[in-house]
Amino acid sequence: MKIVIAPDSFKESLSAMAVATCIENGFSQIFPDCEFIKIPLADGGEGTVDVLVDMLKGKKQYKEVKGPISGNVNAVWALLNDGQSKTALIEIAAASGLDLITPEQRNPLISTSFGTGQIILQALDSGANKIIIGLGGSASNDGGAGILQALGGQLLNAQGNQLTIGGAALEGLAAIDLSKLDKRCADVEFIVACDVSNPLTGDNGASRVFGPQKGATPEMVELLDSALSHFADIAAQSTHIKQQKSAGFGAAGGAPLGLSLAFNIKIQAGIDMVLDILQVDDVLQGADLVITGEGQMDNQTLNGKTPYGIAKRAQARGIPVIAIAGSLGTEVEGLYENIGSIFGTVRSAQPLAQVLSEAEGNLTRTARNIAATLLIGNEIYLK
Amino acid sequence: MKIVIAPDSFKESLSAMAVATCIENGFSQIFPDCEFIKIPLADGGEGTVDVLVDMLKGKKQYKEVKGPISGNVNAVWALLNDGQSKTALIEIAAASGLDLITPEQRNPLISTSFGTGQIILQALDSGANKIIIGLGGSASNDGGAGILQALGGQLLNAQGNQLTIGGAALEGLAAIDLSKLDKRCADVEFIVACDVSNPLTGDNGASRVFGPQKGATPEMVELLDSALSHFADIAAQSTHIKQQKSAGFGAAGGAPLGLSLAFNIKIQAGIDMVLDILQVDDVLQGADLVITGEGQMDNQTLNGKTPYGIAKRAQARGIPVIAIAGSLGTEVEGLYENIGSIFGTVRSAQPLAQVLSEAEGNLTRTARNIAATLLIGNEIYLK
Repeated sequence: MKIVIAPDSFKESLSAMAVATCIENGFSQIFPDCEFIKIPLADGGEGTVDVLVDMLKGKKQYKEVKGPISGNVNAVWALLNDGQSKTALIEIAAASGLDLITPEQRNPLISTSFGTGQIILQALDSGANKIIIGLGGSASNDGGAGILQALGGQLLNAQGNQLTIGGAALEGLAAIDLSKLDKRCADVEFIVACDVSNPLTGDNGASRVFGPQKGATPEMVELLDSALSHFADIAAQSTHIKQQKSAGFGAAGGAPLGLSLAFNIKIQAGIDMVLDILQVDDVLQGADLVITGEGQMDNQTLNGKTPYGIAKRAQARGIPVIAIAGSLGTEVEGLYENIGSIFGTVRSAQPLAQVLSEAEGNLTRTARNIAATLLIGNEIYLK
Repeated sequence: MKIVIAPDSFKESLSAMAVATCIENGFSQIFPDCEFIKIPLADGGEGTVDVLVDMLKGKKQYKEVKGPISGNVNAVWALLNDGQSKTALIEIAAASGLDLITPEQRNPLISTSFGTGQIILQALDSGANKIIIGLGGSASNDGGAGILQALGGQLLNAQGNQLTIGGAALEGLAAIDLSKLDKRCADVEFIVACDVSNPLTGDNGASRVFGPQKGATPEMVELLDSALSHFADIAAQSTHIKQQKSAGFGAAGGAPLGLSLAFNIKIQAGIDMVLDILQVDDVLQGADLVITGEGQMDNQTLNGKTPYGIAKRAQARGIPVIAIAGSLGTEVEGLYENIGSIFGTVRSAQPLAQVLSEAEGNLTRTARNIAATLLIGNEIYLK
């Protein structure tokens, strides 16, 4: 029997590889001779670089760049070199992430994606011919203006001067000059991985949906929404495409808009990008069963999360899927369409700290009992 | 497919029948055409009368009897009349239980099993030719002296006067006079159902092991242990059997000793009594799978609890067993020898009150997912 173990991490307790190892250990108690293939996954958000670097033997890179508000941060990204191509893996959260500043510092009027642009420049300097950027967890709401400026793009006001950083300044945008844009941008394959499909502006747009968690007041939200829409209007003078309603352009404070002015971007679901780069479709060939999992699962898992992404790939090949969640939400019924069975691991009424500290044992035990149940199902008459 | 669903209750949240119904509801989502046989179980402790009355269409009886310390209690017992025989089901906890008094009232020096003896008398008055008494949850530590006195037995001091009630008074026992014992006692089949195998006295005896939870201080424990041993010595003058070390005589404050002076008792594990009276061996004929469960499961479940008892019966017939526990203890590995797989139902880090309030949904969901896993196991190649 060939079992593919392809979980995400259990946030705050176990890395994706640690989760996969616990599941293997539990299953091995029942099926010692089974072939287990462990593929730790991520959905394009935080942790994605770690997972891919490990799986693809990439090399982590570090660069001192501008942080989201002020000062510099030492941001990590990764370079994968398979001999034929050089792929850079970048997370916007590494240089422009919400976790890099305190709650008091949050201010999407002035927070910027500039540092992420500096990382892209270093990736180009390193010879990358393919760049994958994971959107998610950003502090900025600047439509990727900072990225564009870091790459040499000029966002000019009515006086012909470069705009200051941040989303609010875009209200004064009069013209975009791409003549000094880094020439290498044109030749790079550029994948934008995101796990939301929100448009740039409007009720489901970047500012109204994600602005508040970045520190925007209701007044700031309206100002930012209007500024992003204005940016998109001016951008359309160059590209002839109005991007206000394009799916996914609402990710990471509208970063795809700025990126689309510099690169020929392709937007992909984060989990699908990870599954593709790890060639999971090949791994699934001949598999009898897929075990996936995530720290928390509920009907929200349908929105582009790891278990749903891998389950759809497995389902397309007729391979059954079982999921193990660190904990379950109140509603999980929606997942049954793609995932055969779902189990939580919490063993009794406990506070969160204790649940997290027991994650390894709970997960291993649950995996062992799922395996034993499969064996019972295999041996009894079930009609 | 024929599935026998035979769980205990989930204490503090669901009756055994409610547990069985949730499991059936969960399994039916996957196996709508399956034959489900629900047998709610109990292990001889509290709840046993309820389960058996329901399953066997018995009739509840009530009697105002002496409580464990002072005053009267309205105690319930049950009469099963199948036309051929009349069986009385009595729980010692109904008249002499720890739950009938406040923690401050606990005093095993004077608490008595007298009220239980009064119930036995009523059972005899009702024509019962078989009496089953479930031991467990008693407040008394009187070696069943109160029961014996209620039935007409005389426990005399050196002056030839009847002893006062309670375990401490037994220190003054000089002689036992059974000449006025109710004559019907000789003709009744008498089953003592208990879930412990502790001896009457000594380090594993009634007083040292169970005395403290009944309110005994260390000094009281030693006095009671000595008094029970003395009672056993005097009893042996009539029976010629010293019962200090007999297995099970340490249950319910030594109640089997007093009972053994009045009846020809047969001690049986509580769960085995329940399984026998419900003719579970017949029900298991042709079953493909057994699902059991209990509110809390861990390695202690091996000590005569319901899931272990039914699992051994199923195992003897080669029928696989799966258990669902409201919550799991830290160690469950010991159960795997008899139970194929074990699942908890708690969905996330939560306080006990919330876990209890969600018991029904959690149990149904877990059962549904076990069924779905069985189906996956049935459909994939598992070697």
